Amino acid sequence: RSFATIARPVAASASASTPASLEPLDSFERRHIGVTTESDVKTMLDACKVDSLEQLIDKTIPAGIRLHRELAIGAAQSESTLHKTLKSIASENKIFRSYIGMGYYNTLTPPVIQRNVIENPGWYTQYTPYQPEVSQGRLESLLNYQTLVADLTKLPFPNASLLDEATAAGEAITMAFVNSGSKKPRFVADAAINPQTLALLRTRAEPHKIEVVTADVLKFDFSANDVCGVLVQYPTLSGDVHDYSALAERAHKAGALVVAATDLLALTVIKAPGEWGADIALGNAQRFGVPLGYGGPHAAFFAVSEKLVRKMPGRIVGVSRDASGNGAYRLALQTREQHIRREKASSNICTAQALLANMSAMYAVYHGPAGLRKIAERVHRLTGIFAEAVAHHGHTVVNKTFFDTLLIKTSVPAAQIISRAVEHGINLRTVDAAHVGVSLDETVTRDDLVHLLSVFALQGGEPAPIAAIDAAVAQRGPAYSAVARTSAYLTHPIFNSHHSETMMLRYIKSLENKDISLAHSMIPLGSCTMKLNATSEMYPVTWPEFNSLHPFAPVAQAQGYARMFEQLERDLVEITGYDAVSLQPNSGAQGEYAGLRAIMAYLKDIGQGHRHVCLIPVSAHGTNPATAQMVGMTIETVATDANGNVDIADLRAKAEQFKDHLAAIMITYPSTFGVFEEGIREVCDIIHKNGGQVYLDGANMNAQVGLCRPGDYGADVSHLNLHKTFCIPHGGGGPGMGPIGVKKHLAPFLPNHPVVSVGGKKSFGAVSAAPWGSSSILPISWSYIRMMGGSGLAQATRIAILNANYLQARLKSHYKILYTNKNGFCAHEFILDTRPFAKSAGIEAIDIAKRLQDYGFHAPTMSFPVAGTLMIEPTESESKVELDRFVDALISIRQEIADVESGKADRENNVLKNSPHSLRHVTASEWNHPYTRDQAAHPLPYLRKNKFWPSVSRIDDVFGDRRLQVTRAANDI
Amino acid sequence: RSFATIARPVAASASASTPASLEPLDSFERRHIGVTTESDVKTMLDACKVDSLEQLIDKTIPAGIRLHRELAIGAAQSESTLHKTLKSIASENKIFRSYIGMGYYNTLTPPVIQRNVIENPGWYTQYTPYQPEVSQGRLESLLNYQTLVADLTKLPFPNASLLDEATAAGEAITMAFVNSGSKKPRFVADAAINPQTLALLRTRAEPHKIEVVTADVLKFDFSANDVCGVLVQYPTLSGDVHDYSALAERAHKAGALVVAATDLLALTVIKAPGEWGADIALGNAQRFGVPLGYGGPHAAFFAVSEKLVRKMPGRIVGVSRDASGNGAYRLALQTREQHIRREKASSNICTAQALLANMSAMYAVYHGPAGLRKIAERVHRLTGIFAEAVAHHGHTVVNKTFFDTLLIKTSVPAAQIISRAVEHGINLRTVDAAHVGVSLDETVTRDDLVHLLSVFALQGGEPAPIAAIDAAVAQRGPAYSAVARTSAYLTHPIFNSHHSETMMLRYIKSLENKDISLAHSMIPLGSCTMKLNATSEMYPVTWPEFNSLHPFAPVAQAQGYARMFEQLERDLVEITGYDAVSLQPNSGAQGEYAGLRAIMAYLKDIGQGHRHVCLIPVSAHGTNPATAQMVGMTIETVATDANGNVDIADLRAKAEQFKDHLAAIMITYPSTFGVFEEGIREVCDIIHKNGGQVYLDGANMNAQVGLCRPGDYGADVSHLNLHKTFCIPHGGGGPGMGPIGVKKHLAPFLPNHPVVSVGGKKSFGAVSAAPWGSSSILPISWSYIRMMGGSGLAQATRIAILNANYLQARLKSHYKILYTNKNGFCAHEFILDTRPFAKSAGIEAIDIAKRLQDYGFHAPTMSFPVAGTLMIEPTESESKVELDRFVDALISIRQEIADVESGKADRENNVLKNSPHSLRHVTASEWNHPYTRDQAAHPLPYLRKNKFWPSVSRIDDVFGDRRLQVTRAANDI
Repeated sequence: RSFATIARPVAASASASTPASLEPLDSFERRHIGVTTESDVKTMLDACKVDSLEQLIDKTIPAGIRLHRELAIGAAQSESTLHKTLKSIASENKIFRSYIGMGYYNTLTPPVIQRNVIENPGWYTQYTPYQPEVSQGRLESLLNYQTLVADLTKLPFPNASLLDEATAAGEAITMAFVNSGSKKPRFVADAAINPQTLALLRTRAEPHKIEVVTADVLKFDFSANDVCGVLVQYPTLSGDVHDYSALAERAHKAGALVVAATDLLALTVIKAPGEWGADIALGNAQRFGVPLGYGGPHAAFFAVSEKLVRKMPGRIVGVSRDASGNGAYRLALQTREQHIRREKASSNICTAQALLANMSAMYAVYHGPAGLRKIAERVHRLTGIFAEAVAHHGHTVVNKTFFDTLLIKTSVPAAQIISRAVEHGINLRTVDAAHVGVSLDETVTRDDLVHLLSVFALQGGEPAPIAAIDAAVAQRGPAYSAVARTSAYLTHPIFNSHHSETMMLRYIKSLENKDISLAHSMIPLGSCTMKLNATSEMYPVTWPEFNSLHPFAPVAQAQGYARMFEQLERDLVEITGYDAVSLQPNSGAQGEYAGLRAIMAYLKDIGQGHRHVCLIPVSAHGTNPATAQMVGMTIETVATDANGNVDIADLRAKAEQFKDHLAAIMITYPSTFGVFEEGIREVCDIIHKNGGQVYLDGANMNAQVGLCRPGDYGADVSHLNLHKTFCIPHGGGGPGMGPIGVKKHLAPFLPNHPVVSVGGKKSFGAVSAAPWGSSSILPISWSYIRMMGGSGLAQATRIAILNANYLQARLKSHYKILYTNKNGFCAHEFILDTRPFAKSAGIEAIDIAKRLQDYGFHAPTMSFPVAGTLMIEPTESESKVELDRFVDALISIRQEIADVESGKADRENNVLKNSPHSLRHVTASEWNHPYTRDQAAHPLPYLRKNKFWPSVSRIDDVFGDRRLQVTRAANDI
Repeated sequence: RSFATIARPVAASASASTPASLEPLDSFERRHIGVTTESDVKTMLDACKVDSLEQLIDKTIPAGIRLHRELAIGAAQSESTLHKTLKSIASENKIFRSYIGMGYYNTLTPPVIQRNVIENPGWYTQYTPYQPEVSQGRLESLLNYQTLVADLTKLPFPNASLLDEATAAGEAITMAFVNSGSKKPRFVADAAINPQTLALLRTRAEPHKIEVVTADVLKFDFSANDVCGVLVQYPTLSGDVHDYSALAERAHKAGALVVAATDLLALTVIKAPGEWGADIALGNAQRFGVPLGYGGPHAAFFAVSEKLVRKMPGRIVGVSRDASGNGAYRLALQTREQHIRREKASSNICTAQALLANMSAMYAVYHGPAGLRKIAERVHRLTGIFAEAVAHHGHTVVNKTFFDTLLIKTSVPAAQIISRAVEHGINLRTVDAAHVGVSLDETVTRDDLVHLLSVFALQGGEPAPIAAIDAAVAQRGPAYSAVARTSAYLTHPIFNSHHSETMMLRYIKSLENKDISLAHSMIPLGSCTMKLNATSEMYPVTWPEFNSLHPFAPVAQAQGYARMFEQLERDLVEITGYDAVSLQPNSGAQGEYAGLRAIMAYLKDIGQGHRHVCLIPVSAHGTNPATAQMVGMTIETVATDANGNVDIADLRAKAEQFKDHLAAIMITYPSTFGVFEEGIREVCDIIHKNGGQVYLDGANMNAQVGLCRPGDYGADVSHLNLHKTFCIPHGGGGPGMGPIGVKKHLAPFLPNHPVVSVGGKKSFGAVSAAPWGSSSILPISWSYIRMMGGSGLAQATRIAILNANYLQARLKSHYKILYTNKNGFCAHEFILDTRPFAKSAGIEAIDIAKRLQDYGFHAPTMSFPVAGTLMIEPTESESKVELDRFVDALISIRQEIADVESGKADRENNVLKNSPHSLRHVTASEWNHPYTRDQAAHPLPYLRKNKFWPSVSRIDDVFGDRRLQVTRAANDI
């Protein structure tokens, strides 16, 4: 009986009117869930010493919070049926030619990058590169990205990307404020910046009580010395390309940082921000080969001057060396990050947009500096032609300087032009009653230009003489000549040698093959839920109907998206037990931020604005306190008891102590220790009783879906990591999505957007650049939910719990397991306590983690939530075969530790301390170890048949942080 | 100046009306051609001691045959422009719901297979697995395919696929005839077989003077003992599922072979042909996950009983062992093949449909035996419901037994039903005035069934009570119960463990990573032209508009295809200088066959039917004589002179000697030695003068396109390997396409088709199952031609010639080069003479070939056209960096040989004799070689950074052939 869907406790909902023989057979649940036979389930239940799945769940989840019905999201749709349904929904999106600009441009994704990066599970199923020895491929590519950013901005310290341009500006305002010693309470935004950027500045400024002043920065008087920073858009929203060097000088004199929100393509031809004095440059790298996607995901870039590097938010890739002294890449300066600094971190950001940053980096590698410049020059030339031609038709171009954007005073009311454009299938930027904006891009062809001009040719009359205009424009020189770029960029060989498709393909594949991903083996990351990212779910991401819409296109053109959003929101409401959902937050951290801000706005609205205390258990992920700090809350820590549960007595005491100022609790459920704590309802009650709101971190939703709902047992708001529980791939370190669900009373306070109307009526503001965050990956979660159906989702949760408990059952006689519930069961993850080995054998958690690489596995989560331990989460997508292989590896490692303990193996020169054993190491002519190469490389027989090899030896983090190198250098690896 | 398209002798054609600034920048030529800088071209020209590309070409190609103008196929289109154009053409294809059947069925390609096999260059750019040590992945998959075929047919010796079901039947008729000692001149085809199969039987029978008799085989009288074979369709064209065991007994008694053209899905529930006495089973594996593709490519399967194995056509994968004694896969029994047996071969087939066979094998791995059976049972159940329901509506189902196909006597004229169906977007099988045919498949949903029934519900009236019918049908048992299958199949673990998408993905990726492909490094195969298969070219292959059409759908629904075919034919006419093209031959060998048959038909038509002598130079590829033999010609060999050129004196002598019977010459140009022979015009003249026709083998067209044309210098017909010169990927051993171009006088004789009207009025018959062969891969070549434009195509040829001459120039001081033209230049390929090393160092060509694997390269062509040598063809897609890397490897190998020659290295235990060094070998604890592991694995520094590892050591062919194993066994590798 290998074929049938595994029997489940809750009866499957069959469509009553259809004989079973008519149901399609390409059902998805049995493809998503890795344990595919009844007999495997039986064996695993036996190992857990329970009789049935239902009994396991009864013993795992407190009875009082169980959901005793199937989720009302309908029966599962087969893969092919869903494909048809989604194609039909997609067809409701209308792809107009966009000239809107505002940070989002059409781009030509090189086909070799589309097929081999974003459509390739070898790239998109990778995890964040915490294990650098098996991540050298994407680390190299991210270093290429950083080099691209540093070269074009001429600011030497870039990061590996941020979520979007507007949140990057949000990070900049915080940096500027912190840089002023939190003493200068004003921040100047130029009047001509993108509205979504301004919105984020305001959102982020408010908790810090920074006043955001909009002004014409060229005329702004800094003499009051109360300005911590100034942000310009370069080129401006209206298209102007100003010389900001005098501004920078004035701002610096007044102690303010200068922030340039800029455009990478423009920077190939105009002076770099670092060359005229900017301290921070940021922007959207989208037009480097990443589709519009109705708002995302795209990689934002961010680069700073040397003095700001230790304040840098987000991930930074750096160069170091491995144990053999060979160069190697890894994440640098991790001690700055929120998971270490907690409430002392200045940013809560804990992911990047790695997949998209990699696409943009590859776009630069493919085109090279000469190619990029040629693209920019052509876009500019087309813009120049258009400027002349539109004047020929009687309109006035307002800006005299420009790169690709024009502000046009129309000879008739602007609305008339906008509506003519829409009739022609064209979107322009709506400015005001008398003006429209037009931004050109690399996809514009001659036909497009003629078509666009026809919108402006109101009287008929002679068509503009394009060839003659072109000749005149060419003679005149660029319309940005005052700030034309003279400095070189992208001189590193990597940007000058992969310009044929063959070369590009081989480069992409060679990097892919250095990195472990879900295409190789289980990635058992506690709290990160690395489950199947199914092909059916990924298909729509690269359909033009989803990825070619501008985020500010009229909503009437995006009815397919609207339908999909509406269904997804309804599904998430049903899954969580909340009443409303915002899809805007484009990461978990953004979700936390939005959730806490909604709580604060609500409290203020009911006259409780003075409440500011946030209780956070010691076991919380560092993002929780970092976020609470960012929204201006005061963090108070709650203890845990000996069993790892929240110490309810301490909680009660703290809640009562702070009852006049209690704003919220941030709690993860099941706990970060992987346990369904019995007292969760009580926790919620205590908080509510003392005037606070319950923020429930959704990181562990994979243990709950279909079995219990936060909204039912007392939580008020949660974010959902769609990239964990709902199948959006991790992309090697992003994208993610962190929508939030809230109870009814919080709904009016959900995020809004300055351009497109969304969110609550009493919203606190916007948290992402785009109205629905990273829209183009939402079909992934939508598809997953519909293909699983209510019954399948619950079954996935059960199997996720079964898999974890099976692993625990097999491992517990070999390793100490930290924390289970009173019945001895974990939720969907559990902690291996490896601390005793430090004493018994000098072996640390990191040695086990690295040794697992020799067995072909990515390590589990290390030192979170307990230092010196490993946290394992298998997810429902892994098969029993794979679970057993992983257990066998850990048992074999335990024996290797025992050999050190017994003195059979050397305490220093052993397979663990020397791990991982790279190919180069094992195939070298010298071998100075008391064990054999075979023991190093093939400790278990399966490795002889199929082994993933780390490409470098263990990497020295300290060395790399001491001599920080974050861009590619001539003396490259 | 790294960006510009390389300057070329012939001026690029610019569209005069458009300023250059308006031209799109995503031009393709500079992506396709690997040498991307002027300075590289200069360096390479210098190495060749010529001043310019034009001079190089002048010194390479005889002046008398040059084309002195640009090909008239228009200016190059940019990638994005072409994409739009092709989308628009594609939209002219209308995807109707097909119930036509006749060997082609809708199928659900599992998304994980679509994305990771057919859309993955790691799978589709592989070459035929002649180098098994770097091909273990696809060899394993092909062995899975063979196991699938053997298990379902219960015939123990399958091959690794054939081109299509009809040509497979063509192979069967030849086998049957040969099996009778060429003594039984009749072959019986059942009346109810597919018309395209019957057509191929007739085509192939004619040259052997076999009479194809159609009859009701169940009643046929074999007592005349003059029948060599009988072919049944099982189930029949009309849908019947007969028990053929008595027939088989009667046929065998009369000395005839029994051939079953059958269906893999049906075989999961009905008795296997091998169980009722068939000697050969064949059919189309398409419905196992391969899209319809308007006819192909699909893998045909072919399996025989033990006594026939040595007569098996095509490729067979078998199990052997490597030098370390570990199990390993490789191509078995190659001595049977045409490249060895030449005119003694009974088949000219020299490729398979590896990529498609792999898809079908993966489909079986994904579903497993239980899943496949369930799919079959559901299709049958739906057919049963439909049979009842259509009777309910007043029609008569003719066949009482069935699996998925019904012959329906309609209550009104059949034409009326057919046209109602078309109005509903449905295609049925047209049978005759009173009958229609309906075949169901796995994609049929309840809605489809209701929709289909509405076509037959003429009177309105009550809809058929489907649920009630279903219950009745279920009770009754299957409509094939007399031959229901009881035996097991696919019991091997490989078919019973990869049923989740995660498991499947990892399996696909693990096999991919064992195989070298163009995604890793140059595959420098002389005569096989392994150039870039660009992503843009590959996109349309998996667009539904191209891959979802049934080959026999009304032509009115395939207007997009019609337009594309017409343009492609016109382009190929222009490129070759011929007058007409047939796109039907779906391989080069089929093209040769079609070309020679056209010649014969023409000769007969002009009263010269007695001509039968075919002259073939000794250097010809084995396929040439094999093909000539198949069409009934007599082969006479022409000598070559000391310089490798055709010995014109000998040619003249032979032509005159056989002038009364001279039919043709088969000649390759430039020669198989890689040289543009001066005398080609003279050769053609001599043949024509003596009454013969010139068949010019198009294998080397990559040296000619845009520079000279066979039609201009005297050839009458050529096949074009679209999978060589025109960018269709090799797919790891197929698909290919071999259309033929002919001069006007041969056009009336081009292939036709029994179902869809194509080809010449005086056609000799059909050569493929589908009217336009493998239609769905033709957009690849169409796209390539349009993106290159006339100018780009010629430039590609120039660079292909430059690359070859550059390699030769760098290598000639290290190795002896065999044959160049009088100026010392080769065409696009050249031969390294490695024979002297046998004596000097005991080193054979195979040792160099295998040692190249240690350097990360696929070996060049070995021992063709000269035994003991290596033939190298770099193509225009390789970069100078890659060419240099390859030269460095060969020079380093030359030094390794010198070390043996000088006695520095051991004559037996050296890096060459022990090559390739597999990972397992180099990482083993023992090491018994006088050289280091580093010397074995990293003889050059680049290998430390990025190395492709052979997964097994050198494979023992003889061992495997002696104990032939061609399916997976319990004691597996």
